[in-house]
Amino acid sequence: MNLNALGALKHKTSSQAVNLESIMHARERLDGMAIMTPLVASRFNPNVFFKCEIFQKTNCFKFRGAYNKISSMSAEELERGVIAFSAGNHAQGVALAAKLCETSALIVMPENCVREKFTATKEFGADVKLFGNSTAESFQYADKLAGKTGMAMVHPYNDPEVISGQGTVALEILEQLPDLSNLFVQIGGGGLLAGTAGAVKSINSKIKVIGVEPEGAAKMRTSLRNGYLTTIQNPRTIADGLRISSVGRLAFNLAHKYVDEVVTVSDDEIINTVSILCKSEKMVVEPSGATGLAAILNRKMNLSGKSACILSGGNVNFEWFRKIIT
Amino acid sequence: MNLNALGALKHKTSSQAVNLESIMHARERLDGMAIMTPLVASRFNPNVFFKCEIFQKTNCFKFRGAYNKISSMSAEELERGVIAFSAGNHAQGVALAAKLCETSALIVMPENCVREKFTATKEFGADVKLFGNSTAESFQYADKLAGKTGMAMVHPYNDPEVISGQGTVALEILEQLPDLSNLFVQIGGGGLLAGTAGAVKSINSKIKVIGVEPEGAAKMRTSLRNGYLTTIQNPRTIADGLRISSVGRLAFNLAHKYVDEVVTVSDDEIINTVSILCKSEKMVVEPSGATGLAAILNRKMNLSGKSACILSGGNVNFEWFRKIIT
Repeated sequence: MNLNALGALKHKTSSQAVNLESIMHARERLDGMAIMTPLVASRFNPNVFFKCEIFQKTNCFKFRGAYNKISSMSAEELERGVIAFSAGNHAQGVALAAKLCETSALIVMPENCVREKFTATKEFGADVKLFGNSTAESFQYADKLAGKTGMAMVHPYNDPEVISGQGTVALEILEQLPDLSNLFVQIGGGGLLAGTAGAVKSINSKIKVIGVEPEGAAKMRTSLRNGYLTTIQNPRTIADGLRISSVGRLAFNLAHKYVDEVVTVSDDEIINTVSILCKSEKMVVEPSGATGLAAILNRKMNLSGKSACILSGGNVNFEWFRKIIT
Repeated sequence: MNLNALGALKHKTSSQAVNLESIMHARERLDGMAIMTPLVASRFNPNVFFKCEIFQKTNCFKFRGAYNKISSMSAEELERGVIAFSAGNHAQGVALAAKLCETSALIVMPENCVREKFTATKEFGADVKLFGNSTAESFQYADKLAGKTGMAMVHPYNDPEVISGQGTVALEILEQLPDLSNLFVQIGGGGLLAGTAGAVKSINSKIKVIGVEPEGAAKMRTSLRNGYLTTIQNPRTIADGLRISSVGRLAFNLAHKYVDEVVTVSDDEIINTVSILCKSEKMVVEPSGATGLAAILNRKMNLSGKSACILSGGNVNFEWFRKIIT
């Protein structure tokens, strides 16, 4: 084996792992690109803090993982462009990251995606195709296209660079609130949970990390209870970003290692939390983004000390939003 | 004159002035009481920054001035309680500050005040009386009550301690964004403008301070053009917090000294800005709070460098809010 090949192997190995080093490396890449979003204290409970990824570029944390992934690609990969599938927030993150890395992006979204997310993705300059009725169907189509075109897949969660990028959220939270006791993280494909849990537990293993899922899409809890990665049937929830049949394998492995507990919340609890965030906290948060806080507000855990949740995205459908802020 | 009387006189004199010292003193008093609110970059213009007083206690900057005033009162004054008049945001600030200083508060609000502001003021524990159809009419009633009861008036803007408290907003902005070039501040009674202009110009006279008024309530611009404090007839604007016939004398004097320019915006421009803040920036801001940004978005000035505006309050009427986020 010559040195170049050894170098490539080492690089490959290192990029496969999600650990404090890979997350800190992601933070360096994101420096000056992602926004260090504010951590805001709740006006109604001084022990509750909001990490406001609604003020991130594309109004969602997803830009972090997408940019970390795409900016680590080789010139050759960038030449061919990137492809992704997404219910909408990863779509926008990939579209903007691709633009900043001067490569082209093709995004497959399900036909029933939130209109605002579709429009925004196009506005960031991506080529968007609507296909299927779920992200699983969009994935199959995107995967086929990737095979045909040679474009590199930017998976929304089952990718170490993507997970490491999402983990940077937790590095910032720990800087902003060093005496954090509990971190609540909602679970879609599990990338945000895996990355933040990895960061938090590597820095201070005493901090509790609690995953939060909608009752109708409890794929991580089911998997952890079964002890193996499990696909659930017909996930149903108002939180479109969390409406997924299965978490990623990498996320499952990391959650198994690092996450203290996974709790569930009902759609009514999520909707009520979106309304409270708007009316009392003056923030526009989509259902998926409000799910972590829903677990805090509805006392799904006995808590002591300071708790943070991640308001992960603000890309609501405003027709729906208007109805719930009565 | 004995020493006690001299001390009282000195205290009186020092508390009459608004300057960098009085504003820094206010900041000490507010330390641990007011929230150091985040300065957030716009997602759509990296040269525009929002000082998010919508995340302040009572969702408005008014708590700063009210707390600075009430916490500086003598035990004797606190014994008698405080009285205030307000369209709604100062009302909440005084109600909370009085509660924290363990004194009672009586607040007079106009009968047509925003329902949410009335409810919140009562919830903070104040005794609320509805009187008149404008803050001017509420003031007359409150002034009469103050005379009768001996309760100390906490004026919403024509008071050096109140103005100094509001000025702390600018100290924070300059820490958060040292290379600020332009600060836009909306004008109700002028307390926020006077305090922030005083702070900014004392620290860096090169930074431009621009006052912003609704076209239908251009009392400061009229006064500055006339060269004397002028009362306008029938102020009309959607921005209820800025719907005032005259700025305060102190604010006028400070604005005359420190403010570079006063521009006006239309109600349509204000409403459109509230909508943009909600849909694109994911923040709930009331019309008065969005007025400074309306001047930036509608290019009322030729700008270079970084601009900040103060999202001064988030206490919207949600019935109205729902209609404008279409």
